Amino acid sequence: MTQQAAIALGVPLRLLAEGPSVAAAQVVPDSTVGDYRDLETLRRVVDGCDVVTFDHEHVPTEHLHALQREGVACRPGPDALVHAQDKGVMRSRLDQLGIPAPTHRRVSTVDDVERFAGDLGGWPVVLKATRGGYDGKGVWLVSSPQEAAPVVESGVGLLAEERVDFERELAIMVARSPSGQCAVYPVVESVQVDGVCTEVVAPAPGLTEELSQQAQDIALKVVGDLDVVGVMAVELFQTRDGRVLVNELAMRPHNSGHWSIDGAVTSQFENHLRAVLDLPLGSPAARARWTVMVNILGGDVGELYDGYPHVLARDPAVRVHLYGKEVRPGRKVGHVSAYGDDLDDVRERARHAAGWFRGDLGDEEDDR
Amino acid sequence: MTQQAAIALGVPLRLLAEGPSVAAAQVVPDSTVGDYRDLETLRRVVDGCDVVTFDHEHVPTEHLHALQREGVACRPGPDALVHAQDKGVMRSRLDQLGIPAPTHRRVSTVDDVERFAGDLGGWPVVLKATRGGYDGKGVWLVSSPQEAAPVVESGVGLLAEERVDFERELAIMVARSPSGQCAVYPVVESVQVDGVCTEVVAPAPGLTEELSQQAQDIALKVVGDLDVVGVMAVELFQTRDGRVLVNELAMRPHNSGHWSIDGAVTSQFENHLRAVLDLPLGSPAARARWTVMVNILGGDVGELYDGYPHVLARDPAVRVHLYGKEVRPGRKVGHVSAYGDDLDDVRERARHAAGWFRGDLGDEEDDR
Repeated sequence: MTQQAAIALGVPLRLLAEGPSVAAAQVVPDSTVGDYRDLETLRRVVDGCDVVTFDHEHVPTEHLHALQREGVACRPGPDALVHAQDKGVMRSRLDQLGIPAPTHRRVSTVDDVERFAGDLGGWPVVLKATRGGYDGKGVWLVSSPQEAAPVVESGVGLLAEERVDFERELAIMVARSPSGQCAVYPVVESVQVDGVCTEVVAPAPGLTEELSQQAQDIALKVVGDLDVVGVMAVELFQTRDGRVLVNELAMRPHNSGHWSIDGAVTSQFENHLRAVLDLPLGSPAARARWTVMVNILGGDVGELYDGYPHVLARDPAVRVHLYGKEVRPGRKVGHVSAYGDDLDDVRERARHAAGWFRGDLGDEEDDR
Repeated sequence: MTQQAAIALGVPLRLLAEGPSVAAAQVVPDSTVGDYRDLETLRRVVDGCDVVTFDHEHVPTEHLHALQREGVACRPGPDALVHAQDKGVMRSRLDQLGIPAPTHRRVSTVDDVERFAGDLGGWPVVLKATRGGYDGKGVWLVSSPQEAAPVVESGVGLLAEERVDFERELAIMVARSPSGQCAVYPVVESVQVDGVCTEVVAPAPGLTEELSQQAQDIALKVVGDLDVVGVMAVELFQTRDGRVLVNELAMRPHNSGHWSIDGAVTSQFENHLRAVLDLPLGSPAARARWTVMVNILGGDVGELYDGYPHVLARDPAVRVHLYGKEVRPGRKVGHVSAYGDDLDDVRERARHAAGWFRGDLGDEEDDR
């Protein structure tokens, strides 16, 4: 999807791909297959590039520091990116900035977890790997020392957090350029199932002006104080008592911003490129009253293409994005967006299309 | 731009490129450099493809017939495409269909031209090469036998046409799938300078319902009777006496449809792919009241990228498309689109951005 934006801007991309068949390598001619954890590989690939950016957060921080010392423009830079790489670092820094967050503490023993549960007023406790988690991986809900033990003993760095009694999850996307210009997208509602985002509604229905402003203030404070360059998504909990708490940060185009391709004046992908190139940012305004994005998760249907005849004929205005990924159960292999004036209609259209691609439309219909 | 649509659909493209640095080869990994006039090259490239389509009309008709006999799905097929390749064939066929056109006749001698001028009631006469012309090339306005002589003596196949006293030029884009579904885009106004399209306004301002219907009827009749598959642009003259006449046909995504990328629910590029793949077509409806597309023609500025800081900062909602082509005077090297409710505002924004990239904004401003 970044390549689509790069084509419009006439900006050539060079890709470091994990394998020859990954989605991006299918559409970027100047691709190298290699290991992003290997500094020599990174040095070779970035040679001659004006700027280096990322579509995941797993490039080792120390390698980015090394590249930066060698004069490579890494955007976002390692000192910003580490807050999206390491939840422990992120929580500490956001605490310093006074950003509202769930109660949390670094833990390294079962005793630590038990003490934390005691201070919270009881179990359960959410344990999060400080590094490497995504899509619900690296997150455990534990209700006793016995349940906490195997997680602690696995040896990963851990953060303990309260389980937030939230009303819903929100996300806000902001783009920031090196010269400090920021563009904030509308706050969206993000629906998660088993830790995986299934659906995004832009803008978040029924959000008060006050909460919208809180979310925007948080996003602008974080992106500025952390000197983030590029786009950053802030995932938020909206609590039942009317606050927003920061759940996660992502410093790259993010699933919660995919709606912007068809639903905003400037997509998150284009604004990410414009930001890292220090070009003026594009308008993040919504083009329609409502846009709903529903992920296509790998299901029973191996050949997504076979879903086209039905999906496209049923709804000539639905927007489909298939990623060219091999279909595996639960894997995000595409998304659909619908937009319009009537939220119920828009949501039904997007859900129907995504459900059809997945092959479990019967279940989807029953769920309503 | 077709690759942008292919990425969304998850459809892999294979490209036959005229050279290693052409725009499409910069963004399509599976590219072969070769000569589209060589049948063996064509055979090698199309081997294993589900369908073959075109971004220009110059592949020899006989080669397409050969491929078709060998079982290759060419869309549009050679029997349709020849009408966009050969203006003589096109005029004869459209006459048979009763489609309104400028008065015309095939000519091969200066005497023929003189007789045609006499029958028209006098000079001037428009001479058009039946094959190979584009962007004003292959078109001559001649006012005497002396002026006609060198054109006739050059030996190209020629069509003589009346010079139409038109009020403005219009274009209409239609997509058609093998199973016969059609999607018609709104009629647009196309502004030409020296035979080169400079600006497109969608929809054509002030067009009567009657003329809009006439244009649509023509487009649907041509695309159906010629069994066109893919998108087809019909370029039209709106005469001062309130008729529309067919000027040219193009059977591929066309400059007059570039506005659809940012201005329509489904771009002409996506609908071309959907059509040739026999997938249901997407809605061609406009997303904004007005969309204006202005071509960026090669001018005094060699490095288009340098136009970004001004253009993007002045107008966060303008949409820029740079093609990665080397800048040469008059060459189409990109386009910009703006959309909104106020046509004057939208047109000024698009013109300003394109003029800035070209480097001749002073002149543009004077023209207003």
